[in-house]
Amino acid sequence: MKEGNKKRKEQIIKNTLKASYRAPQFVANLSEYLGFSEEKIEHLFEKKYLAPNWGKHEALLRFDKEISGIERGTVVYEKDGGFEKILGFPKIRRAMVLEPTLKKQFRKIRSLAVEEKMNGYNVRVAKIKGEVIALTRSGYICPYTSERAKVKLNLEFFDKHPNLVLYGEMVGPDNPYVPKTSYEIESIKFFIFDVREKNTGKPLPIALRRKLLKSYGFFQVKLFGEFPLEKAPAEIKKIIQQLGKIEHEGVVIKDPEMLLPPIKYTSSQSNCSDLQHAFLFYNETGRDYMLSRIVREGFQTVEWNESEKDFEKRCMQLGKSILSPLRKSIQDVKEKRRLFEEGRIRVRELETARCFEEYLKRLGVEASFEEPKPVGEEFLIEIKKINKSTHDKTAAIWEGQLW
Amino acid sequence: MKEGNKKRKEQIIKNTLKASYRAPQFVANLSEYLGFSEEKIEHLFEKKYLAPNWGKHEALLRFDKEISGIERGTVVYEKDGGFEKILGFPKIRRAMVLEPTLKKQFRKIRSLAVEEKMNGYNVRVAKIKGEVIALTRSGYICPYTSERAKVKLNLEFFDKHPNLVLYGEMVGPDNPYVPKTSYEIESIKFFIFDVREKNTGKPLPIALRRKLLKSYGFFQVKLFGEFPLEKAPAEIKKIIQQLGKIEHEGVVIKDPEMLLPPIKYTSSQSNCSDLQHAFLFYNETGRDYMLSRIVREGFQTVEWNESEKDFEKRCMQLGKSILSPLRKSIQDVKEKRRLFEEGRIRVRELETARCFEEYLKRLGVEASFEEPKPVGEEFLIEIKKINKSTHDKTAAIWEGQLW
Repeated sequence: MKEGNKKRKEQIIKNTLKASYRAPQFVANLSEYLGFSEEKIEHLFEKKYLAPNWGKHEALLRFDKEISGIERGTVVYEKDGGFEKILGFPKIRRAMVLEPTLKKQFRKIRSLAVEEKMNGYNVRVAKIKGEVIALTRSGYICPYTSERAKVKLNLEFFDKHPNLVLYGEMVGPDNPYVPKTSYEIESIKFFIFDVREKNTGKPLPIALRRKLLKSYGFFQVKLFGEFPLEKAPAEIKKIIQQLGKIEHEGVVIKDPEMLLPPIKYTSSQSNCSDLQHAFLFYNETGRDYMLSRIVREGFQTVEWNESEKDFEKRCMQLGKSILSPLRKSIQDVKEKRRLFEEGRIRVRELETARCFEEYLKRLGVEASFEEPKPVGEEFLIEIKKINKSTHDKTAAIWEGQLW
Repeated sequence: MKEGNKKRKEQIIKNTLKASYRAPQFVANLSEYLGFSEEKIEHLFEKKYLAPNWGKHEALLRFDKEISGIERGTVVYEKDGGFEKILGFPKIRRAMVLEPTLKKQFRKIRSLAVEEKMNGYNVRVAKIKGEVIALTRSGYICPYTSERAKVKLNLEFFDKHPNLVLYGEMVGPDNPYVPKTSYEIESIKFFIFDVREKNTGKPLPIALRRKLLKSYGFFQVKLFGEFPLEKAPAEIKKIIQQLGKIEHEGVVIKDPEMLLPPIKYTSSQSNCSDLQHAFLFYNETGRDYMLSRIVREGFQTVEWNESEKDFEKRCMQLGKSILSPLRKSIQDVKEKRRLFEEGRIRVRELETARCFEEYLKRLGVEASFEEPKPVGEEFLIEIKKINKSTHDKTAAIWEGQLW
């Protein structure tokens, strides 16, 4: 065989392997499992709305978009000659004002459970094809979070409950995704707020879920209590004001049976802290993201019927949350410093850090990893993620470019 | 002839008249005049990027979009067997920081003229086919502004200079478009900032323009002076701070010969006053519009190297400019008041008000006109423009709808 021919054949085999998830029989089977036509499946692959993960997890397909009621971030894969799927995080909608919203949305039930909404990053952990894996909100398999899950969790849970998925929040300073938070956590902890079945996504009722998680020693988000519907708005206001004082984010208000969809509500401090981060990178953060946080402040001050003094405090806090980070970034670029976001990871295996670096690159994140520092049996690694768009825009303005 | 046939024929004739600007010969002639292919002209008509005005001004075609360097708002019409056009307002770009921008953009010239940028609405006035007409920024013929132009201006100018167009700003409280301003004007005045030739859009040099306008007794925007390039940033900073104190908008910095494009720069008070208006109607105003005004505040505080005390004042001003109007609108809707924008017109003929009402309706603006009040020989009419989108969104939230 000629060299050219051989190379060509190798390329064909490689492409076939890569594209195995697009083989006709696979498409036919998946079509049957999801109840979509084969054309629709082909279309989803074409548009990359349904796309493989990378490397050894290629067989786990992720929905990059909500399709016919299947949440974005849902992951589907072959299992025992059939398929299995892990549903994405259901989008939790927001109350802009407490009283009218709770009365309307929960009118069918008598009491509401209130749990803390923490500020970290969303992760699902499940045993998939014999391996405990952490999926991000978008359905990617994060190598760092997967290692942390295996290190931190009592893995017996997954053997006893192979059909259950833990939905939670990774919180703490050893966090590559979310800017610094105000919890008293030394490294990183996985706070679970939901346990759901594979395939159906059916959640456990709150009491059952909390009891089960407790029995495995898992961390859970705080439960503030169960309140009768009429008293809930006033109780939640008190909770939110307390949470705000310690710079915590807010609450998720739930049907104890988990039959109605939960609703979130956040503190003013959380809105402002989002803004502080957003305006550091004013050219990268979505306009909708920024404006929605501002509008929430307007509704909260009216619903709470604030005094002029409290209103002025709120104005000052809002103004500072916007202008301080803007000033910092603009000043930094003026003085030729690069803009970046800081993160940190703590790994047991340096290989995990290497995989994570590769993973970020694949996601299109430009990041530099500092030298690992040994801490006990683990390694701490600082990460700087470059914010090119805001940096370049700001630098161009300092060079006299027009807006 | 049967009744049905007759109606059909009438309809055909009506459509033909309406579509006369799309007749093949007209398209061919216009194609030659603009230097566009006939297909391109047809395409522009199809997409309504080139569209007729209404009623008796149907023959004046307006560019609803910038096309091949022809500004949006440009108006073109038949004249003496050929065509004539009035170019739109050239977009004036903005300096986010003064010193680097002026040095870069005006490096080819020695001195800069600084004129006031006023807060009103942009109007071009010209004699078109024997009639003095006021064109809005988008190239519509505003019946109210056209009447005001005829009442207020020395019309001899247009007989002596049939080839010149006045570019200016309508400022004052008898203003249907722009919320209340801070100038000491009783009714409405037309401040001219540019005089340009028909067809070419070529501007008069500043000194010549000012002399010509003065000789006709026209109002002009204030000229703060001509400054050497090196001193201009410091001088303009002083001017801007003075303008800010009296709640004026800012300046336009120009090449005295008008060969380079002008650049605008505004006061913090102007940014904040834009925000005050924008957040009253938070669901209608563009996100980009809001964010750009916020970002300007960041650049100004860094370029001016402000003290902490001044920075805190700026934060407070920003926070209040955002939250006060938000609070007002949210509170108004909570208490079942409708949200609207107020405007006012002062007309000589009640027929003008009627035409203007019809005109707003055509533009899709929902407005209610109060009873005319006679004032001397004229009539004052208050106008309430309904802001449906913000009202409905806010009302839905008060009824418990989720965000």
